[in-house]
Amino acid sequence: MNKYVITPLEKLSEHFEKLPGIGGKTAKRLAYAVLKMPHEKAESFANAILEAQKNINYCKKCCNFTEKEICDICGDTSRDSSIVCVVEDPRDVLAIERTGEFNLVYHVLHGVISPLNGIGPEQIHIKELLERIKTEKIKEVIMATNPTVEGEATSMYISKLLKPLGIKVTRLAYGVPVGASLEYADEVTLSRALQGRSEIV
Amino acid sequence: MNKYVITPLEKLSEHFEKLPGIGGKTAKRLAYAVLKMPHEKAESFANAILEAQKNINYCKKCCNFTEKEICDICGDTSRDSSIVCVVEDPRDVLAIERTGEFNLVYHVLHGVISPLNGIGPEQIHIKELLERIKTEKIKEVIMATNPTVEGEATSMYISKLLKPLGIKVTRLAYGVPVGASLEYADEVTLSRALQGRSEIV
Repeated sequence: MNKYVITPLEKLSEHFEKLPGIGGKTAKRLAYAVLKMPHEKAESFANAILEAQKNINYCKKCCNFTEKEICDICGDTSRDSSIVCVVEDPRDVLAIERTGEFNLVYHVLHGVISPLNGIGPEQIHIKELLERIKTEKIKEVIMATNPTVEGEATSMYISKLLKPLGIKVTRLAYGVPVGASLEYADEVTLSRALQGRSEIV
Repeated sequence: MNKYVITPLEKLSEHFEKLPGIGGKTAKRLAYAVLKMPHEKAESFANAILEAQKNINYCKKCCNFTEKEICDICGDTSRDSSIVCVVEDPRDVLAIERTGEFNLVYHVLHGVISPLNGIGPEQIHIKELLERIKTEKIKEVIMATNPTVEGEATSMYISKLLKPLGIKVTRLAYGVPVGASLEYADEVTLSRALQGRSEIV
């Protein structure tokens, strides 16, 4: 379309465009910003990409990202390692940690079962979870996948695998978000909130 | 705040956060996306950053980014090089080129005069523009800086330098954007659109 193409700039912009949530225009903006960086900054940016990939691996226990063999959360002996919270993504761990109220450990699936996208149970870290159930003393598994169709299905799939092993499997509560207005809550959320109502004492 | 920090991930995320329009959460999302890339992809991303910086420089004539000494637009002999359109940013060149209607050349300032941000006339490529006026046969300079306070001021500053040299200096027309609704136009735009009204023939 445009006959005045600056190849290295286009290439860089294509790389940015492959990142999630970055469209064509933003990718161009970012590529131009990189061009305008002082050379040391750009070099250290490129290095950070390589370093992150080289030095970060999956925790042998919970499959979260870590620089070590066992991540800091799994290695924290003050935590109750008998309660495992199963999440889709490493960022979900950070979100739950931010509540600052729960002293449990995690298991990161790195995805959800999604047949439409060709992701089956083998593609996410379910096998490692089953392995942990066998070798560790786990009393409760909290399913904290996203409240989406795929998150639900993954949660159901895993709980069906765990139930026969005599483990308590729980799910995050559904309900109206704190601070939100009922008017804007969708029917499904509202009906779940009513079903899950609790007595005021 | 968070005591479970993965240093290489934090570093990478800080680099993303320095880019324009990228906040803390997006930076984290991008850093995680880089981690999940296949190794070759991440390597080629890092290389693209270094290559772009190494191979791209300013066009000797118009100061736009180019891989060569003279950019493709300045080197295009079919263009009318007596009309120079002055823009703030290389992306503005692409925007004007997309209209496909003008066969002129450009001059990229790479910024605007902005005393509050410590950017004076010496920090942007005005000197190079004056140099071109002396050596090239330029009849008209179109000021196409953004219609912001700083864009305006820069445009005024440059036109005051050029007028004594006997060069025709013009400015982009102000008015209501095509397809927009008058109701939503601000007073200044509307009053400029009225001032600049033209007869229907």
